[in-house]
Amino acid sequence: MNSEWIAVDWGTSHLRVWAMRGDTVVDQAQSDKGMARVDRDEFQAALLELIEGWLGAEPVDVIACGMVGARQGWVEAPYSAVPCAPTPVTPIRVPNTDARIRAFVVPGLKQTSPPDVMRGEETQIAGFLASRPNWDGVICLPGTHSKWVQVSAGEVVSFRTFMTGEMFNLLSGHSVLKHSVGTGWDDAAFVDAMADTLSKPEQLAARLFGLRAADLLQGQDGSIARAQLSGFLIGAELAATRPYWLGQRLAIIGATGLSETYAKALKTQGAFVETADSTECTLAGLLLARNLTRQTA
Amino acid sequence: MNSEWIAVDWGTSHLRVWAMRGDTVVDQAQSDKGMARVDRDEFQAALLELIEGWLGAEPVDVIACGMVGARQGWVEAPYSAVPCAPTPVTPIRVPNTDARIRAFVVPGLKQTSPPDVMRGEETQIAGFLASRPNWDGVICLPGTHSKWVQVSAGEVVSFRTFMTGEMFNLLSGHSVLKHSVGTGWDDAAFVDAMADTLSKPEQLAARLFGLRAADLLQGQDGSIARAQLSGFLIGAELAATRPYWLGQRLAIIGATGLSETYAKALKTQGAFVETADSTECTLAGLLLARNLTRQTA
Repeated sequence: MNSEWIAVDWGTSHLRVWAMRGDTVVDQAQSDKGMARVDRDEFQAALLELIEGWLGAEPVDVIACGMVGARQGWVEAPYSAVPCAPTPVTPIRVPNTDARIRAFVVPGLKQTSPPDVMRGEETQIAGFLASRPNWDGVICLPGTHSKWVQVSAGEVVSFRTFMTGEMFNLLSGHSVLKHSVGTGWDDAAFVDAMADTLSKPEQLAARLFGLRAADLLQGQDGSIARAQLSGFLIGAELAATRPYWLGQRLAIIGATGLSETYAKALKTQGAFVETADSTECTLAGLLLARNLTRQTA
Repeated sequence: MNSEWIAVDWGTSHLRVWAMRGDTVVDQAQSDKGMARVDRDEFQAALLELIEGWLGAEPVDVIACGMVGARQGWVEAPYSAVPCAPTPVTPIRVPNTDARIRAFVVPGLKQTSPPDVMRGEETQIAGFLASRPNWDGVICLPGTHSKWVQVSAGEVVSFRTFMTGEMFNLLSGHSVLKHSVGTGWDDAAFVDAMADTLSKPEQLAARLFGLRAADLLQGQDGSIARAQLSGFLIGAELAATRPYWLGQRLAIIGATGLSETYAKALKTQGAFVETADSTECTLAGLLLARNLTRQTA
């Protein structure tokens, strides 16, 4: 089965690939060979492992976004500076590839003040905007490193990154709280904890150890602690981003479960929220990026 | 060299012992056999490894404080509930020990609402107060899990725990920030970051990833990032504890370097701060605890 082109989302910890015909997915695959687990001279091999069966005699376009474009990645794709369109420049050609592929990497975005960077989200934003001409507003992309992005007149105006997902993983898996944070989820506990931090962000530091103490003294259920920890951290993110979401047109691009959690939190604050699937946005954005490479070819 | 009694500070990650005559240290030793690294039936062996040379024909009192009294410790020493004196009850005798020792563990303190616990700090507080009759005020004990303790009329009235030290270790050593946080220290960067979070605690979540971005975009020095990370986290702790320290008589019990960092932060806010050495307070508190065991013997 040959593909017309190949879409690649290559993050820090995962590699996902799709065999594409136009905007249609005809096959897909993934591995855990994220950017952080691959040496510089092993990128092509890690990719070919997944896409070998999709290649034919003619060279196939491979369009990749994400951390693969970092300095330690396959090829460095220098950041574009905001304000700018989410994909303002032609993706960077990877030199000296296997003859069966022509590989490109989409550059990320940078912001000078306050300093911030993104790699991968710009492609999702481009894909989101592709089907929504004249969309102005704020996009939240929750995840390991959540992004909040102000979009106006087709440009990314400003953005901020939050380590909310990484903090949750560190605290629930590698701190003293790991003994008290279980599996499962309690919606009411999440909403209460989120609202508490949102209204009293200065109390965040005082709340965290309370999850351990409530377990030791009251045998609090691990599912409540899990939802509270998530609520405290997302509440802190929403406290910091209040100017981004208050009274703004708002979209969330993310995986289903996490998007719903953020949407729930924002709706309790009266925010109107549209959600979009992150994979669909990534593929739409990579298609746009591919078209850029063909205009200049 | 026999000792009159043996003082033991047995925390999660370390075991420290002192051979004592009255309030005088005649020898000391330590190991990394903290409570978390020792199985229930290995506590005595871990202790004897260090103190064997100090034992004689007559049984010697061994007085221990810290996590050794937790449910997973050598013997569970149930918490006393505040408000109460820092060491309100006789230390718990460890059953079935080697005939050369009589071992006791000092109970920790608990607070019902908001739920909180301490093990070890109560002994330092008792030792601190021993040489300061009628001292009323607030004691800060910075560390992996910092404690803020309100003391009045010889009693611990209330306290709160902050995971500041553990957060610093997780973020600087195990998050994406590990690539940007170096060694060294920049005092001005610490004070600025601390004051920033103290005045705008809702911005904490927005600040952390900025340490990574400032490195990627501006090559910011790792010593500045280290001081800023510490400043953000201590600033968050001070924002949450403002009612504890604002206008209060204040003492810090801790190791020299960390105490100075907290004292510096508090002095910029106009707080008057006394500092006391944590080891001296621990030994003075364990001496008091030993006297309690002899009154009831």
